[in-house]
Amino acid sequence: MAPDPTRTAAFRREIRATDPADIRRIVESSGYFSREEIEIAVELIDERIARGDASGYHFLFADSASGMLGYTCFGPIPATESSYDLYWIAINDDLRGHGLGRELLTRTECIVGEMGGRRLYIETSSRGQYASTQGFYTRCGYRLEAHLKDFYSQGDGKLIYVRDLTGECAR
Amino acid sequence: MAPDPTRTAAFRREIRATDPADIRRIVESSGYFSREEIEIAVELIDERIARGDASGYHFLFADSASGMLGYTCFGPIPATESSYDLYWIAINDDLRGHGLGRELLTRTECIVGEMGGRRLYIETSSRGQYASTQGFYTRCGYRLEAHLKDFYSQGDGKLIYVRDLTGECAR
Repeated sequence: MAPDPTRTAAFRREIRATDPADIRRIVESSGYFSREEIEIAVELIDERIARGDASGYHFLFADSASGMLGYTCFGPIPATESSYDLYWIAINDDLRGHGLGRELLTRTECIVGEMGGRRLYIETSSRGQYASTQGFYTRCGYRLEAHLKDFYSQGDGKLIYVRDLTGECAR
Repeated sequence: MAPDPTRTAAFRREIRATDPADIRRIVESSGYFSREEIEIAVELIDERIARGDASGYHFLFADSASGMLGYTCFGPIPATESSYDLYWIAINDDLRGHGLGRELLTRTECIVGEMGGRRLYIETSSRGQYASTQGFYTRCGYRLEAHLKDFYSQGDGKLIYVRDLTGECAR
């Protein structure tokens, strides 16, 4: 049996020139995201490369020897004191179910806490197709705080999850 | 008695070079907004001037002969089919209570409807200081759909209002 690449993942925060192409590959691999959503995912890393910290977008990457396995994109919400958004969390589709998503999310929460964030918000779709995503956030300690009905389109609402990070990260 | 300047307001959508300074003056006049929020308000019009429609920010201005009285800033929410955000509505502070805010909002809803928008979202603070703002949205037909507690800071949550625009605008 081939070794599980998620067991030996290396985490990094610095940006590489190859990241936009890897992010596109990972986000496309899921089959979940629309063309427009994929372009938004790539725009965020492009914006980060162009403007650095001033972009407001921060990243955490999980790499194997053969390439990027997954990543998160997060940042402070403007005009709030200590609220952060998780803009993206994505894992290469054939690596799902190995705990890498949870590890990326936990490590992201620690980074956000160190940056002064007190709560992390995550938005997702209310559609049944996202049931596993919704369950993942609940298992990771997130609370469903709002449901904006028909937000994305008729029958496709926006769910807003939040986790209070105070004291959550001890390492 | 001086004539009420809000009765003779002229409405326009095109942008003028003087708009950023006028927007700053109006947003500062309320005393409601933080320094950071004022900078965000000005950034939106700067972005509009730099990038046009591609900025995603649209404006409606109410002018008198002596200058801008108030404005709205709104636009389509990316990755949604027909949801729009009202990013800002602001009236010069000494003109509040004359119905100009409501007229700006109603005209904005008509424009959004013509652009294909089916619902308009408005976000505001849960603080008592914003009670008159909250009442204004309710009187204008908006429904409180979510309350994100402590979103802006401890004790200062985000309220999300929405109005379904389908069939609302006949003119």
